[in-house]
Amino acid sequence: MHSPNAIPSPTMSYSSITTEVDPLIERRSDSSLTRVSSTSTSHSERHSDYNDVVRDIIIGFADGLTVPFALCAGLSTLGDTRLVVMGGLAELFSGAISMGLGAYLAASTEKDHYHSEEAREWDEVTHKPEAERQEIYDILAQYHISHKAATPLVNELCKNPEMWVRFMMHFELKLECPETSRAWLSALTMGMSYFIGGLIPMIPYFMMKRAGDALLVSVVITALILLAFGYVKTVVTVHSRSAGVWGALQTLLIGALAAGASYGIVRALDSGSRQP
Amino acid sequence: MHSPNAIPSPTMSYSSITTEVDPLIERRSDSSLTRVSSTSTSHSERHSDYNDVVRDIIIGFADGLTVPFALCAGLSTLGDTRLVVMGGLAELFSGAISMGLGAYLAASTEKDHYHSEEAREWDEVTHKPEAERQEIYDILAQYHISHKAATPLVNELCKNPEMWVRFMMHFELKLECPETSRAWLSALTMGMSYFIGGLIPMIPYFMMKRAGDALLVSVVITALILLAFGYVKTVVTVHSRSAGVWGALQTLLIGALAAGASYGIVRALDSGSRQP
Repeated sequence: MHSPNAIPSPTMSYSSITTEVDPLIERRSDSSLTRVSSTSTSHSERHSDYNDVVRDIIIGFADGLTVPFALCAGLSTLGDTRLVVMGGLAELFSGAISMGLGAYLAASTEKDHYHSEEAREWDEVTHKPEAERQEIYDILAQYHISHKAATPLVNELCKNPEMWVRFMMHFELKLECPETSRAWLSALTMGMSYFIGGLIPMIPYFMMKRAGDALLVSVVITALILLAFGYVKTVVTVHSRSAGVWGALQTLLIGALAAGASYGIVRALDSGSRQP
Repeated sequence: MHSPNAIPSPTMSYSSITTEVDPLIERRSDSSLTRVSSTSTSHSERHSDYNDVVRDIIIGFADGLTVPFALCAGLSTLGDTRLVVMGGLAELFSGAISMGLGAYLAASTEKDHYHSEEAREWDEVTHKPEAERQEIYDILAQYHISHKAATPLVNELCKNPEMWVRFMMHFELKLECPETSRAWLSALTMGMSYFIGGLIPMIPYFMMKRAGDALLVSVVITALILLAFGYVKTVVTVHSRSAGVWGALQTLLIGALAAGASYGIVRALDSGSRQP
């Protein structure tokens, strides 16, 4: 759905998906995720990798199911399935490339951003330690921690500049160092999911000669998939079946509006240009 | 670029954009953002709103500049500008709808996710206080804070369940309550930016009769805009001009690959279907 934050962060989806696990154990392994190295193959790490993949699939699939489907619906009004297939495939390939490489570029920019902020934080810890010290108090004061109760922690943290900077990165700037080791895998997963999501609504146009018939079959198939996909996606994130039903309907609505707009525009322009 | 995280969070872009401000003052107002209410019109709040808008514009514009441009390049090989305009406009409208409404839906799902996790956290704080207490120690241990230095803070935090839950939401689950008050504005900004970004490369097809000529003008205009846009976007995020040049080239490369793929596919399919 082209959306910048269709699914919360990997950590979130991790805690969302493993609902069978006792919440306590789950949270434990959750917070330990930040401690395991990227080369580790511990249980929780593998879980996190798994959920990153699920997240990439969801984002790519959602986007792929909507726009190529809508474009094909629009082009189908011209009555030529060959044209629908050409336009649809062109959008499918360019969309998948743009999405996959765009995600890769975003991940690498994000990493640069993290390091640029980290360097600034080191500079401040080194050259303005008193002001940075005060900022720890300020952060903790947001949780009504008194100056007195915070002091032992502040004293200990300020003795270890590396941990001090890490604390400020996480709690002041709310930045986590993004992993780019798997950015290529992520780009590939997302691009492929976009491609597959967009290919499904096009299958009828490959197989049927009359564009109107193919459109009908495409609409029915895509509507069912959008409903199922919207339901699963929402239940996984919100843990509620009634929210899932709403999510399914909303996902369908977006697809319907996009396809309706596309259909209406091509039809209007086509009939307009055919008039004497 | 269809990417889920093309630009870091509002807080990040806030700290990135205001480079003229003294870093210390900037950080101060930055961390105070979490304290101001959504109806406040304080200085920092207005800044944050401003940067949310900039972020939405960037995401929408990047996506719009790439895919509709690529699709039009592909369709132009069929030699009929009327067809390019119809296909391009259909993609433009459906893409803008999908992007805008998709972002709105994502924001509302994210809010539901936050509240569902918050309810779980309240439950744990109420029914398993000892385990949750230990988790505060675990979180702080990641920054090498000893049990002894953490104890006064833990004792104070556990006396105030509301702050305790808030602390766990932010520091354990790393979730911030997403603002949905401006979700509609965000959806509109993003959708409109997609539309405008996608409309620019199409203008030559509106004005010129020969599709080949229009393609040439469209490629030149879009290449220049992609370069400028990639540069500005990267410099704003990473604070480095050399990174900006790389960002410009990478953004151009993605657009070129997407358009090249689209062009190649339509051309190949078209010449294939014309053969006897």
